[in-house]
Amino acid sequence: MSERPATLRWVGDVWSGWLEVLDQRGLPGQVEVLKLTTVEGVWDAIRTLAVRGAPAIGVAAAYGIVMAARVAAPTGQVGPLLEVLRARADYLKTSRPTAVNLERAVERMIIIAATERGIGVRRLQERLLIEAQAIEAEDAAMCQAIGVHGVRFITAGMGVLTHCNAGSLATSYKDGGGGTALAILYEAQRRGVDFKVYADETRPLLQGARLTTWELMQAGIDVTLICDDMAALLMKQGKVGLVVVGADRIAANGDVANKIGTYGLAVLAAAHAVPLVVAAPSTTFDLDMPDGSGIPIEERNAAEITEGFGRRTAPVGVKVYNPAFDVTPAKLVRAIVTERGVIEPVGAEQVRSLVG
Amino acid sequence: MSERPATLRWVGDVWSGWLEVLDQRGLPGQVEVLKLTTVEGVWDAIRTLAVRGAPAIGVAAAYGIVMAARVAAPTGQVGPLLEVLRARADYLKTSRPTAVNLERAVERMIIIAATERGIGVRRLQERLLIEAQAIEAEDAAMCQAIGVHGVRFITAGMGVLTHCNAGSLATSYKDGGGGTALAILYEAQRRGVDFKVYADETRPLLQGARLTTWELMQAGIDVTLICDDMAALLMKQGKVGLVVVGADRIAANGDVANKIGTYGLAVLAAAHAVPLVVAAPSTTFDLDMPDGSGIPIEERNAAEITEGFGRRTAPVGVKVYNPAFDVTPAKLVRAIVTERGVIEPVGAEQVRSLVG
Repeated sequence: MSERPATLRWVGDVWSGWLEVLDQRGLPGQVEVLKLTTVEGVWDAIRTLAVRGAPAIGVAAAYGIVMAARVAAPTGQVGPLLEVLRARADYLKTSRPTAVNLERAVERMIIIAATERGIGVRRLQERLLIEAQAIEAEDAAMCQAIGVHGVRFITAGMGVLTHCNAGSLATSYKDGGGGTALAILYEAQRRGVDFKVYADETRPLLQGARLTTWELMQAGIDVTLICDDMAALLMKQGKVGLVVVGADRIAANGDVANKIGTYGLAVLAAAHAVPLVVAAPSTTFDLDMPDGSGIPIEERNAAEITEGFGRRTAPVGVKVYNPAFDVTPAKLVRAIVTERGVIEPVGAEQVRSLVG
Repeated sequence: MSERPATLRWVGDVWSGWLEVLDQRGLPGQVEVLKLTTVEGVWDAIRTLAVRGAPAIGVAAAYGIVMAARVAAPTGQVGPLLEVLRARADYLKTSRPTAVNLERAVERMIIIAATERGIGVRRLQERLLIEAQAIEAEDAAMCQAIGVHGVRFITAGMGVLTHCNAGSLATSYKDGGGGTALAILYEAQRRGVDFKVYADETRPLLQGARLTTWELMQAGIDVTLICDDMAALLMKQGKVGLVVVGADRIAANGDVANKIGTYGLAVLAAAHAVPLVVAAPSTTFDLDMPDGSGIPIEERNAAEITEGFGRRTAPVGVKVYNPAFDVTPAKLVRAIVTERGVIEPVGAEQVRSLVG
């Protein structure tokens, strides 16, 4: 267990400070920290997946607005500054157009700028840094609360299977914790519960192999890497007592959209009487979506599958189907752990009463 | 659709001929044919997976004995020749010690040499080539018979999911057909049935991505590559009407050991009411094994998962679990298609009556 860099960290004051970002493109081979000083640098870091995970992207984008504000006031007037900030916010949103947290974070920054415009340019610039830091602190508190609410699902001696990376690399990282699904594991570790983790490698982008194993090893948590097609055997062998995953969007009835492979795990878990628990901030719920059938399944580039490992592993011209997400019906989800509490059993009424 | 090399092909007479092997290590990127003239060359091709698949390995090893025989008769006496052949047979068995077909093929060659020793060295050498060619022809006939018996499972418009490579690259390849699971698809194509195939990439060694897609594309069959963790979504979407796989060993009650991931597919198929069909030669049955619980699960090298594609994709020192096979209980198998006919439903009595 060694000291690892934070996922994101603001260093210094608003005028001369910068955002440090742990560059996830190089993990696990290279542990390198990017120093971002411009909004273009933040855009690029998000676009190229140097920083990833909806909560972490939101925090990074908020700091991007801070950077935009400190250089965008040539006239010293608040009006022109606001115009520039709005344009830079729209620009930041284009870095990952589907990430709802990014949009929410930059809009929150713009609203602060607009509603507190009366304090003048210089104080507004400082105020924006405070707001970005508040977004980051709220994110850290959210992670910790999810851990506390969810820790009861981990019992001594348990094997826990997870998929993709719903960890501290996808959120802020504070006091050795963070994450959504993995926050529950960090909390269990803090309480001295003895457990072990199995990490699906998570094809095609290998977030489990590259990121989840890395952050759990850094934290000193016992983790074993498997291929996605080995999960069923582990369940049959009795090695898995719990499956815990994150979520990208949750419908009003509790249907969960998450990384491709989650639905299959949920079916396998049900067949082996293993509970599947979803951990996500309450902002993940989309109450305008009555159930999961309306959630669009994003299809991604074939090259993620055919040449994802540095060399081509499939014939040139092969047809590829590369859905990035799937939807797990609420009936296969034992519980949804949020920062506000636990939804269990999972259904429209229970969802409404906690996050409605 | 272009003309592809055969998986294995003997060229010329026993004295100056050679074995051509399609080098599967380079597929799908390089299509290269190895020309093997010595028993050491055959050993090396099997050991390094240039030729793979239990039936194909058996055929290659039989030709290895032919090569051993033509250079191993310095005295012109049959007795010393037999001694040399026995030693070379033992040597060939060490190339892939777990492949039962390899052992069976070289032993059949030795028995021919021993029982027909009276015909003299020169005629015995010719006789061994004929026997190797017979083994190859029987393999081709086995594939074709599996195709004919299994073709009824493919219906017009169907999507068929397969895992690993149970195709013509794992057996002899004749008249555009071959394989075990894929023989059924080739037969359906021959009969003009319109269907499409989904190929699991099959981590860790990617036989689906590298080999199954390649051979189906060469044959002009519509194939789409997916990652293993996408199969469940396809089933939910109604895209899969049949799962067809091969087998490495089948117990007396019909439990099937096959490539890791097969068991998970079987559970998912059952949950979606999709039939799973296993195709394998009758030699795959191990009637001394009452059920699948006694079949050992081979664990393989961690590097297959952590650096399988030319670069490292997991942290140095990460724990890895890499089982190469799993066992699917008979109750999840709709039918087992052999060259002798179809076992359906699958149970001890039905197995005994067809292959006992």
